[in-house]
Amino acid sequence: MGGNSFGVLFQVITFGESHGPAVGCIVDGCPAGLPLSANDINRDLARRRGGLGGSSTSRSEKDEAEILSGVYEGKTLGTPIAVLVRNKDPQPRDYDNLKDLYRPGHADWPWEAKYGFRDHRGGGRASARETVGRVAAGAIARVFLASIGIEVRAWTSEAAGVSAPGENDNAFSWDEIENNPLRMPDKAAADSATETIKNLKAQGDSAGCTVSCLARNLPPGLGEPVFDKLDARIASAMLSLGAAKGIEFGAGFAASKGRGSALNDSLVSPGIWKTNNAGGVLGGLSTGAELRFTVAFKPVSSIAKSQETINRQGEKTELLIHGRHDACVAPRAVPVVEAMTALVLADFILLQRSARVS
Amino acid sequence: MGGNSFGVLFQVITFGESHGPAVGCIVDGCPAGLPLSANDINRDLARRRGGLGGSSTSRSEKDEAEILSGVYEGKTLGTPIAVLVRNKDPQPRDYDNLKDLYRPGHADWPWEAKYGFRDHRGGGRASARETVGRVAAGAIARVFLASIGIEVRAWTSEAAGVSAPGENDNAFSWDEIENNPLRMPDKAAADSATETIKNLKAQGDSAGCTVSCLARNLPPGLGEPVFDKLDARIASAMLSLGAAKGIEFGAGFAASKGRGSALNDSLVSPGIWKTNNAGGVLGGLSTGAELRFTVAFKPVSSIAKSQETINRQGEKTELLIHGRHDACVAPRAVPVVEAMTALVLADFILLQRSARVS
Amino acid sequence: MGGNSFGVLFQVITFGESHGPAVGCIVDGCPAGLPLSANDINRDLARRRGGLGGSSTSRSEKDEAEILSGVYEGKTLGTPIAVLVRNKDPQPRDYDNLKDLYRPGHADWPWEAKYGFRDHRGGGRASARETVGRVAAGAIARVFLASIGIEVRAWTSEAAGVSAPGENDNAFSWDEIENNPLRMPDKAAADSATETIKNLKAQGDSAGCTVSCLARNLPPGLGEPVFDKLDARIASAMLSLGAAKGIEFGAGFAASKGRGSALNDSLVSPGIWKTNNAGGVLGGLSTGAELRFTVAFKPVSSIAKSQETINRQGEKTELLIHGRHDACVAPRAVPVVEAMTALVLADFILLQRSARVS
Amino acid sequence: MGGNSFGVLFQVITFGESHGPAVGCIVDGCPAGLPLSANDINRDLARRRGGLGGSSTSRSEKDEAEILSGVYEGKTLGTPIAVLVRNKDPQPRDYDNLKDLYRPGHADWPWEAKYGFRDHRGGGRASARETVGRVAAGAIARVFLASIGIEVRAWTSEAAGVSAPGENDNAFSWDEIENNPLRMPDKAAADSATETIKNLKAQGDSAGCTVSCLARNLPPGLGEPVFDKLDARIASAMLSLGAAKGIEFGAGFAASKGRGSALNDSLVSPGIWKTNNAGGVLGGLSTGAELRFTVAFKPVSSIAKSQETINRQGEKTELLIHGRHDACVAPRAVPVVEAMTALVLADFILLQRSARVS
Repeated sequence: MGGNSFGVLFQVITFGESHGPAVGCIVDGCPAGLPLSANDINRDLARRRGGLGGSSTSRSEKDEAEILSGVYEGKTLGTPIAVLVRNKDPQPRDYDNLKDLYRPGHADWPWEAKYGFRDHRGGGRASARETVGRVAAGAIARVFLASIGIEVRAWTSEAAGVSAPGENDNAFSWDEIENNPLRMPDKAAADSATETIKNLKAQGDSAGCTVSCLARNLPPGLGEPVFDKLDARIASAMLSLGAAKGIEFGAGFAASKGRGSALNDSLVSPGIWKTNNAGGVLGGLSTGAELRFTVAFKPVSSIAKSQETINRQGEKTELLIHGRHDACVAPRAVPVVEAMTALVLADFILLQRSARVS
Repeated sequence: MGGNSFGVLFQVITFGESHGPAVGCIVDGCPAGLPLSANDINRDLARRRGGLGGSSTSRSEKDEAEILSGVYEGKTLGTPIAVLVRNKDPQPRDYDNLKDLYRPGHADWPWEAKYGFRDHRGGGRASARETVGRVAAGAIARVFLASIGIEVRAWTSEAAGVSAPGENDNAFSWDEIENNPLRMPDKAAADSATETIKNLKAQGDSAGCTVSCLARNLPPGLGEPVFDKLDARIASAMLSLGAAKGIEFGAGFAASKGRGSALNDSLVSPGIWKTNNAGGVLGGLSTGAELRFTVAFKPVSSIAKSQETINRQGEKTELLIHGRHDACVAPRAVPVVEAMTALVLADFILLQRSARVS
Repeated sequence: MGGNSFGVLFQVITFGESHGPAVGCIVDGCPAGLPLSANDINRDLARRRGGLGGSSTSRSEKDEAEILSGVYEGKTLGTPIAVLVRNKDPQPRDYDNLKDLYRPGHADWPWEAKYGFRDHRGGGRASARETVGRVAAGAIARVFLASIGIEVRAWTSEAAGVSAPGENDNAFSWDEIENNPLRMPDKAAADSATETIKNLKAQGDSAGCTVSCLARNLPPGLGEPVFDKLDARIASAMLSLGAAKGIEFGAGFAASKGRGSALNDSLVSPGIWKTNNAGGVLGGLSTGAELRFTVAFKPVSSIAKSQETINRQGEKTELLIHGRHDACVAPRAVPVVEAMTALVLADFILLQRSARVS
Repeated sequence: MGGNSFGVLFQVITFGESHGPAVGCIVDGCPAGLPLSANDINRDLARRRGGLGGSSTSRSEKDEAEILSGVYEGKTLGTPIAVLVRNKDPQPRDYDNLKDLYRPGHADWPWEAKYGFRDHRGGGRASARETVGRVAAGAIARVFLASIGIEVRAWTSEAAGVSAPGENDNAFSWDEIENNPLRMPDKAAADSATETIKNLKAQGDSAGCTVSCLARNLPPGLGEPVFDKLDARIASAMLSLGAAKGIEFGAGFAASKGRGSALNDSLVSPGIWKTNNAGGVLGGLSTGAELRFTVAFKPVSSIAKSQETINRQGEKTELLIHGRHDACVAPRAVPVVEAMTALVLADFILLQRSARVS
């Protein structure tokens, strides 16, 4: 499995540089007979685009997926589903001054150390635009999961230091999530965070955030014990997002301060747990309770403020980043987190079919 | 790649149940010509055994590795290195009462939901004893890494809510780590945490912890962009440990509350960074700075206190766990975290060899 | 690795149905810094197209590759190279009568047994058109191999029962191969075979063939011992071609009738062998001698003659296949055999880089 | 997947050098709940041992498998099944004179070119003794296949140029196969071939052979289209055997001389074919007819005759091979061919479970 593919049975490979001709993906291993259309993909691509308000990117291109293969008469064939999204609106001149500089907080320098050279335009392959392919693939996985009743939902649980209410709080609203530009489950929190982010952006700065995710109706036992555990794979999926710096499941880091008697989840009847401190996964296998985790994202590294760095000759220099950039990844990260979660779950659903002799 | 194997070029597969005849591993892909002996493995197995004081397990068996293949005249052949460790000291009667019960906080129930039945003795394959194979494999990886100057070090950074000092603190001592039973870098913190853990154990309870790890002298560019990023693979490796509930790199979760201008790491000269908030990885590639991350472990789930659960018939019942159990995974988790880190790095070192045409 | 991808480090995945919007491939793992253009790919696509004379297909579309990613300023980036080839000239009405019938000698019925339904147009994914993606990927592999001096050549060694001369025969001409429509290394043999094939086609019938291949300047030791041997992988690559029914290396099937003393290849100096009965591979590793093998292809299954079969209702019926079909795969199989060989060798070249500690 | 492992879901990795402490395997992915004992494995190991008469090895050790993991209370757990077979009867002194020489027809020289050094004793990892692990794994696969009614049978179809009768011939007897030391289906042919081989051995020479194999009761659609076709994987499995030089399916090489109208297999009712020239596989998928193929093996390379070769210093020298060696691989190859076939089929049976949405 190369660095650009993911999954064992429900596999995805993404391709494309930010300012090359196109981005996209191939999904291989999606079972045959699933109703699927480009609309299923475009819906999530539109959510990824975001683009409203001060917290989002100003790159306004509309992403339209073309399904090149794998679907016939509205159903998946069992063959690779190739999805193509053209890059319509590149403005490479914005990047001319970056050609010989290494942006702080970016992969520019390590990339060049690895490969000897790089496509500097918009970060090339290391751009967030690469997630177009992930979201397209995840949309296919979500259609598959929906066909067996599994639902994946993510939201911004914190942005610019402003926390959203927890799900048990009355202020938490599932319906609100897609109603505000930050995808927070509470309008008041969203307004407050948006204000803070606007101010940061005005100062040429950016903000971090956390995104929380849950998956419902998972059959118990999903995940492959030992290395390919459900939480191990989810962690891998999330940390494969450029700006992610951490993940925790269930009680997470707080569990390190607790005691066993308080944190042990126990069964009250088969598949029904008294508590869910584990976040729906024990020993790497889904418990039947909701899968729950939170991902920490650092502030966007492309900021308008002047920054110090070095150039290709190793000389110190000052950097001014032009171009269109988000000040916080939160709203766009939400559909990407959902997409990656869906890809993991779809794969484990298929792997689960081999667990028993019959 | 099945659920029990890990790695692309430097691969490991582990085998064995806690109370079966043996545990062990096969390492496939270790390059030829590396000096290696059973001692290199036994040294880390002895560290994994721990077993001193109130915070550790009382299972006292000495683990001795037998190298079954892959080494000839003291050097690796390039063929699979199979390592066998016999289970010498099982006391399966301790587990008789667990046969038809599902222990809270354990994988018992999901395992049975997946496979239809299970080896209940000591958790079977879901036991921490499985990490013997990981530590053996990791020891081989560490010998390989040492041959190119790479060092991996882990320590207990928090236990039972007691934090160890940071590395910049005078109280932090590298030498102290292996001197106290908790593997903390400060005797005072270790004593305090040990006392707390003893009290918890006396109450039939257990404690959580965090383990921090760093790797030095990594060449820049390690990691495969997009899905198989360095931090993604490390995250997968760490969350594949049964009790792990979270991981963060560099500034980690705190980064979600910070601003870009404060967190962006910038170069002062090639490979030399002003700060290392990223924890040594940007865009999934090593930066040349130290790789740094912290893993959160939940309290040990096997506690002596009476707990409520259900039996195979779905009836509520009370559970009393006998047997020998740690009250905190910290000391034994340290060499396991090092082992898994070494396995990831060894694999990426080999993958790096294919990055360029010549 | 799904059924549609191939390779460990130099990987390819192909996509596309015969009469869908497009076919193509992604190559992942091609090292960075390799000069590459669409011309390098189009050259081999043109060879695959063939289309001259009575032995080839009449489907006349010109295949033009668009490189969607992975190449910047004329060099490979080390990122996935996606190649798109539009299907320009489909005539799906030719296939209307095949919708509910299962063509003899084709995968129609097993495909439907596996997936529940199929794209019947031109065989869908089971069409020879899928090899466009292979040839495009193989062209990239060949550019990489050429950069280190490795050459791969294939030719039609037998067609319609007419054998080409062996390489030691004066009649064998490397230059002739690309000069005649059958890609035979001797004009007289080619003429004779072409005549036979024309007659078969006139009778609504088709012919089988063998294609031979060699690779020069391989470093010794290529191949991974035990399962992923050089010859094992080549065999897998060749039998993955729809019409292939057999393969032999070096002395091949004749070796089964010989004696050890006559067939054992021995060294006369390091890397120089007295004979090459092994076909350049011993114990699964390249010997430094030329890699040599021959693939047997069955006659094209799509024949114009009326044939008996059954329909979806299980009733016996008569089948008449319309559309444009080769009467012998030979000329088009040659570049496909070369492409697959190149893909195998490029992968092993990269794997070889991990064989030793330093 | 490293060079020493095989399979996607039903995976095997083998380990061990000929004269190291042990050989064996791990099977990962065998579904849970399969009744399995060491006897199931030992039965096939005994068949592999062969050792009767002039055509077989004189190495007389009895191979006894110890199951180290993965089986509990007589059933597979779904965890890795590690199988250990100690090397009891090595006579390494026989190999002292080979330390600095490269045996003709062996992998000695390419191995050293790859890895820099080698375990010369009995060929090390390149020894036929490595197949112990394959046969052990294959035995597990066969138990799984038997549980769903699939049967795999192989036999010596030709040895030392003496052909066994075809299955339609009255002289062919399934019962005879295991009754004669060469595993031929006809006593007369076996006697004749045995005589020829004895004479060759007396002259210090060796003989080649072919082994044929069939599998019955395969569900249709087994195999993954495009690269991981059923016949592609079988070909890979067979050519991964050290002495194999070719393989053909169904009509095989003869098909290259035939015409489509004569060779096309057609359905007479669903799953029932008029002919089986394809050998049970079309487009890489099982057809429901018997899977049929034949493997060509070269004569054993270790012959007693004096041979010319070079030493490590590159000087010409004469070689005399001592030790115990078969004069023909036929009898021992039969269970190995069955084992590898079973491993392929078990894997595809599991992969098949993911073909459709439901």
